[in-house]
Amino acid sequence: MKVELENVKPMDIEKRSFEIITEELGDTPLLPGTELVVKRCIHTSADFDYAKNLCFSENAVEKAIQAIKDGACIVTDTQMAKAGINKRVLARYGGEVYCFMSDEDVAKIAKENGSTRATASMDKAAGLDKKLIFAIGNAPTALVRLYELIEEKKLDPELIIGVPVGFVNVVQSKELIMHTDVPYIVARGRKGGSNIAACICNALLYMIDNNRG
Amino acid sequence: MKVELENVKPMDIEKRSFEIITEELGDTPLLPGTELVVKRCIHTSADFDYAKNLCFSENAVEKAIQAIKDGACIVTDTQMAKAGINKRVLARYGGEVYCFMSDEDVAKIAKENGSTRATASMDKAAGLDKKLIFAIGNAPTALVRLYELIEEKKLDPELIIGVPVGFVNVVQSKELIMHTDVPYIVARGRKGGSNIAACICNALLYMIDNNRG
Repeated sequence: MKVELENVKPMDIEKRSFEIITEELGDTPLLPGTELVVKRCIHTSADFDYAKNLCFSENAVEKAIQAIKDGACIVTDTQMAKAGINKRVLARYGGEVYCFMSDEDVAKIAKENGSTRATASMDKAAGLDKKLIFAIGNAPTALVRLYELIEEKKLDPELIIGVPVGFVNVVQSKELIMHTDVPYIVARGRKGGSNIAACICNALLYMIDNNRG
Repeated sequence: MKVELENVKPMDIEKRSFEIITEELGDTPLLPGTELVVKRCIHTSADFDYAKNLCFSENAVEKAIQAIKDGACIVTDTQMAKAGINKRVLARYGGEVYCFMSDEDVAKIAKENGSTRATASMDKAAGLDKKLIFAIGNAPTALVRLYELIEEKKLDPELIIGVPVGFVNVVQSKELIMHTDVPYIVARGRKGGSNIAACICNALLYMIDNNRG
């Protein structure tokens, strides 16, 4: 057996991982202020494509951090993304995480309208009287509906994290969001996922407060 | 605005996605019987690396399917992976999903031992008197502990899904599992994640029963 384990203490694993990522990024250019978001996406996926595909609207990170400090809530399009977000740090500033995908009324409306549950759950979220950050890691139809709601002036979110993954309308739905005036963090192209959506939320939360417990 | 959406009905999106994946894979060789697992990993990540990095022990898919039909339970190392697994299909065969990462006793033991919660939660899982499939998408320390428990004859799992992601001991921990006699599905290298762990479970579940509701 030739497998040799590196001797790193549990509490130092993340630090060591970020050192390796920084080292391997070398002189890859990253937008100032976005480095921790980009590196956490690479940490979550071991995929250095995120150094190139992540797009940020002007001051998106600063605006998102201010929104969280002001008590913004996060809406996800999967229970998986909701499960991955550090809710304790968010709660310190008054925020909560919502996912309406499994709600009975959402399933009913989607069926009646021949739409997706993701579409119907964005409509439900738009009815919340709160500052909102959307973290979309799965359904391009969620992003398309957010685009429509913004165009119809029915929604004015603090930030859209647009990182659905996949092959049908994923690329297009992200481009739509980048055509709005809303702050965004988008993984251009096909890649993304619930894990990436959660990890971008956590990157923002840890930039405010690295005490995760 | 030049963004044009493809007109695909909600219920046809997944089918269309798999068609695109199949088309782009072209004549990439896939091990017979593993195609649906590989394609679902690509579907979940939009990352064609999984066509090359997924390794299967002999008849791993068939053995896993039999274990699920016999009521095997799934143990994960994150709440996110647990959230992503289709628990309704699993429940039809009597299985449940366990994740002990947030348990107080696990946190206490990890602290006392200077180990990770992932290590302690594998020890807790080994005490279950059930057929077990482990789906590890995050912590290489979980895989290392599983390897030790197997070597010490304290654990004989039906399958290990070894897909932690990252930079410290991730590659090595996967090689350890591939040195055991236990059936495995491993994403060789750094890539993987809770989403990949959940998606491999779901691929197996849908091969048994594609009625997901």
